[in-house]
Amino acid sequence: MPKKDLANDEKTLDRLTHLGKKLVNQLNDNNEENLTIDTQVRSKSNVHYDEEEGRLSLGDSYSTRKFLNISHARKFMQTTLVANKAKELVESGRTASIREVYYQLKHSVPGLDENTFEDQDESNNVVVDIETATGAIREDLHLFAEPKGRLFGPITINDSGDSIDCMAMGTSGLAIPSIVDHYEFEQHSADFIMVVETSAMVNRLVEEDFHEDHNAILIGTGGQPARGARRLINIMHNRLDLPVYVFCDGDPWGYYIYSVLKSGSMSLAFQSDRLATPSARLIGMTMEDIDKYGLEHVTEDLKGKPKDSGGPTKDYKRIHDVMEYDWMQKDEWQAQFQKMLDKGVRVEQQALASQSLEFVANEYLPNKIENEELLD
Amino acid sequence: MPKKDLANDEKTLDRLTHLGKKLVNQLNDNNEENLTIDTQVRSKSNVHYDEEEGRLSLGDSYSTRKFLNISHARKFMQTTLVANKAKELVESGRTASIREVYYQLKHSVPGLDENTFEDQDESNNVVVDIETATGAIREDLHLFAEPKGRLFGPITINDSGDSIDCMAMGTSGLAIPSIVDHYEFEQHSADFIMVVETSAMVNRLVEEDFHEDHNAILIGTGGQPARGARRLINIMHNRLDLPVYVFCDGDPWGYYIYSVLKSGSMSLAFQSDRLATPSARLIGMTMEDIDKYGLEHVTEDLKGKPKDSGGPTKDYKRIHDVMEYDWMQKDEWQAQFQKMLDKGVRVEQQALASQSLEFVANEYLPNKIENEELLD
Repeated sequence: MPKKDLANDEKTLDRLTHLGKKLVNQLNDNNEENLTIDTQVRSKSNVHYDEEEGRLSLGDSYSTRKFLNISHARKFMQTTLVANKAKELVESGRTASIREVYYQLKHSVPGLDENTFEDQDESNNVVVDIETATGAIREDLHLFAEPKGRLFGPITINDSGDSIDCMAMGTSGLAIPSIVDHYEFEQHSADFIMVVETSAMVNRLVEEDFHEDHNAILIGTGGQPARGARRLINIMHNRLDLPVYVFCDGDPWGYYIYSVLKSGSMSLAFQSDRLATPSARLIGMTMEDIDKYGLEHVTEDLKGKPKDSGGPTKDYKRIHDVMEYDWMQKDEWQAQFQKMLDKGVRVEQQALASQSLEFVANEYLPNKIENEELLD
Repeated sequence: MPKKDLANDEKTLDRLTHLGKKLVNQLNDNNEENLTIDTQVRSKSNVHYDEEEGRLSLGDSYSTRKFLNISHARKFMQTTLVANKAKELVESGRTASIREVYYQLKHSVPGLDENTFEDQDESNNVVVDIETATGAIREDLHLFAEPKGRLFGPITINDSGDSIDCMAMGTSGLAIPSIVDHYEFEQHSADFIMVVETSAMVNRLVEEDFHEDHNAILIGTGGQPARGARRLINIMHNRLDLPVYVFCDGDPWGYYIYSVLKSGSMSLAFQSDRLATPSARLIGMTMEDIDKYGLEHVTEDLKGKPKDSGGPTKDYKRIHDVMEYDWMQKDEWQAQFQKMLDKGVRVEQQALASQSLEFVANEYLPNKIENEELLD
């Protein structure tokens, strides 16, 4: 495999070097009271919905870690270890899993009865510290996580020198890797990108030639999308200027997937600009679909207790939680959730099979697109 | 997508037709006391380890379901519905997810206040009934489940007319679909197949060009292997006559993955001949690796309580369970588990990164292969 050189490797090295130099300068400066590192506060209190940009972002709260404070000394050691390892990876054109980094750096400190790291949570947290302290995200640092998601459609992607025609991938599709920033889009004839919650629905659409007939790039996320899939949707939308439709189950979990794709997630609010696609719209399932397409007999009852009967718990609780997010306050979304509560049911995308297997590909989705029945 | 015609479609149709005709004959025969269907008993009591074949199989216990018995009438209706749907899928060259089948067949029975199916468990169970009653497995019936697993290596696979060079798939690899029986292996230059438990380890080996340098087909299962991956390993081994090495974590969960790949699983014992690969051997991690490669500081303590301290629970319980399986009675396996209990630790494959990132690809695996240090 050729060395993994990312477009912003140089910038990342600058950022890591800057962090290191700052620490060295502080160490050499007798006037400095403290050796410090500033990281953005990532808790909910510092997460804001930026209405203009249409996505979540972190506010201006920083926490300053004072490393000469004895309780922070361990974290200081860990931060420099991980930053150094990341620099090594970027320089050598290698990538590593966050678990490998943990194992690579775990050792006993010479002369002390103490390990550098006790478990992977410690090193994972330090990775996020370095992300917010330097502005370089995990993928920039050449660190990857478990990959998830598949892509089918009329586009040829160059990955590390291999030219991959995503229309000629049999029944498999392209497996979306954890890092996609190095992708080059060689050519395409797509009219839109459709993100699909379940693998089974992607299989259905491919078997019915939906991607071919409608010039669609289909991205199956296999449930909650991984970072790789979110980043891929973001760069495809930006570089190829294609609209993004989201097709998920009609329940609070599906709508939350939509919201994460569109506006970002709270835990990764500091990089919504790279992971979120604010112009994405929802194509289905909606609560109106139930009546319109006669799906009453294939809905599922919401689990848990409603608010006025000792709840809300389970599905009901999730609905109320998501309804209250700042970025879900549009009338059309409040109406969806209210209908869900009133009906007391959820509807899965695969429930459309009750009409016929090909119904979703030949009628449901084409009608929605033609009539622009899309929730924003 | 071209119609999915499998090699044994005709046989499957014969089997389904035979089942239907048998039921019709019984219905027309006034002398028949009962309308019956025989299915193999699939509980543990009827699972045997066939030492000669080296895999699990079902014994001769059959259960006879009498459909004119009122408590079985519902199941009779469900069985004919699902069998009919499967016949339709095979005839039309379509595939469907088991969830789609559930939704396709779920409706209220005319004239009765009763649904054909109440939840997917009901239809899933009927699918397995039909599998054992006809001898046609789920994939034969054109039914698929969630796909999982990736493949890299010097082999070109033809999937539904698409010729896929698995050495030119960038950082993704081939995503292994749920149904692989239609695969054609066009050409290859592989010396062996290596099955790898974690995706991160597959990434590591690919980044180090292990598959290229050693002519290896790498199959990442992402934990417990899905049916598609198990079937693929089975047909690759049989058709290409390549040895299979299994590389998993050194813990009871990893060794169970090995055992499932080699001998089959209890719940799918009726199709071990299609899913298991009895000649597969384990390349690592072994308990001896800990001392040999200085991994003492990167092992993890076993979770739970040992047998003599109020247990066994968690990891300890799992070790004792797997140790007792008929197919794990070889001395070399008993010794592995005993060492694990004595040391009280487990060791992950990614722990090898503590030496260096490239150690696993450049030293660990090549040494094992050269010295044939393989557990059978």
